Amino acid sequence: MKMSVPSFVTLVALLAATPGLGPESSGLAKADAPTDASTPAFLPDGRLTYPRQYREWIFLSSGLDMSYTNAPAMAGSSMFDNVFVNPEAYHEFLRTGTWPDHTLLVMESRGGSTKGSINKRGQFQTDDFMGVEVHVKDTRRFTGGWAFFAFGGTEPVQQLPAAAPCYSCHRDHGAVDTTFVQFYPTLLPIARQKGTLAPGYKP
Amino acid sequence: MKMSVPSFVTLVALLAATPGLGPESSGLAKADAPTDASTPAFLPDGRLTYPRQYREWIFLSSGLDMSYTNAPAMAGSSMFDNVFVNPEAYHEFLRTGTWPDHTLLVMESRGGSTKGSINKRGQFQTDDFMGVEVHVKDTRRFTGGWAFFAFGGTEPVQQLPAAAPCYSCHRDHGAVDTTFVQFYPTLLPIARQKGTLAPGYKP
Repeated sequence: MKMSVPSFVTLVALLAATPGLGPESSGLAKADAPTDASTPAFLPDGRLTYPRQYREWIFLSSGLDMSYTNAPAMAGSSMFDNVFVNPEAYHEFLRTGTWPDHTLLVMESRGGSTKGSINKRGQFQTDDFMGVEVHVKDTRRFTGGWAFFAFGGTEPVQQLPAAAPCYSCHRDHGAVDTTFVQFYPTLLPIARQKGTLAPGYKP
Repeated sequence: MKMSVPSFVTLVALLAATPGLGPESSGLAKADAPTDASTPAFLPDGRLTYPRQYREWIFLSSGLDMSYTNAPAMAGSSMFDNVFVNPEAYHEFLRTGTWPDHTLLVMESRGGSTKGSINKRGQFQTDDFMGVEVHVKDTRRFTGGWAFFAFGGTEPVQQLPAAAPCYSCHRDHGAVDTTFVQFYPTLLPIARQKGTLAPGYKP
C-alpha cells in the first residue's frame, strides 16, 4: 500500500480532532466510555471495537468441531473454539450466577491439527486463526439485552441483525440469560447453586 | 469423619505455632514466600501447594486426546487438556520469548462429550475434572531449572522424580526452555521473533 508521510500524518490529526473518533472522545455517552480494556467500547455509529485483550481475560472452555445442526462435518478439517469473558463479568457471575451489564463473551475460532512436533493422535490448536464472535450484554442499548458481533479482522463491526439465527437459538437454548453456560463446566454448577438456570433449560 | 471441637481447635493452635506451617511461616526462605496467589508456594518439605487460582490465569491452549506415543486411544472416552500460566510469567514471555523464574504452567485434564444440550457432533468439555499437572521453573531449587508435580486433589504434593519420562521428553522436544510452546499458538511466533527456540527443536 502506498501512503505518503504527510497524508498519513494529516489523517491522524484529522481523526484526533473529530468528535467521537479521538481516544478521549466525547462522542461516547459517559456510561459507555471504556473505563479499561475489558469494557465494551462502542463507536457513535454503534459499531463495537475489537476486544484486543481477550486472550488475557478469563477462559471459560473450548470445544472441537461442535455443531448444533445435523450438517456433516467438513472432511479433513477441524476447528477449535475458545471462549473468554471479561474478568469483571466473570467475578460477578461467581457471586450471582448470572451476567451483569457490559458482559463480553468472546468466542475465538482456530484450526486444529494432529500432525506437528511429536504429537501422534488427537488434536492441538494451530496458528490458523479464523476470527472472533462476541456476545455483548447492554440492556440500555439492545432489545433483549444482548447482541452478537462477528469480527473477520480487527476493524469495528456493526451488530448482527436481530433476525440472525444465533439470537433465537441462544434465547431458546441458553442455560443462563441466553448464554450457553451448559458448555462452561466451571460456571454451570454455580448457576445451579444460585438458581439462575433459565426456566425452559433442558440439560 | 468424627472430630471433636476441642481437638480441632488444639490442632489449629498447634499448626499456627509450628515453624514452617503457619501462614506467615519463617520456614519458607524469603525469596520463596508467596507474594500473591500466582507465585509458586512450596512447603518447607519441598511440596508444592495446589495453585487454586489457575482458572483465572492466562489460557495458553487446549488439546483433545493428544498423545506422544503410539498407544491406541481409549475407545469411547475423550479427554481435553487446558494449559494456563501465571500472568507474571506470561507477560515476561511476551517481552522476552522465554520463561522467568517462578513460572507455573498448569495443565488441567477434563472429560469431553458429544452428547449434551443441543450439541450434535464434535466435543465439548464436561465437569469430569481429572486432575492437574504443574511444571514449575525455579532455577535455585531444581536441577535443570524445572520440576513437574501431579495433583490428584488439592493437597500439596512432592515433585515427580527426575527419572520420570516427562523430564526427558520435555528436555528433548520442548520448543522453548523444555516447554511445549509448539502447542501454544499465540506464543510460538513470539519465540520465533525473539530467537528463543531451542537449538534442537524440530517443528
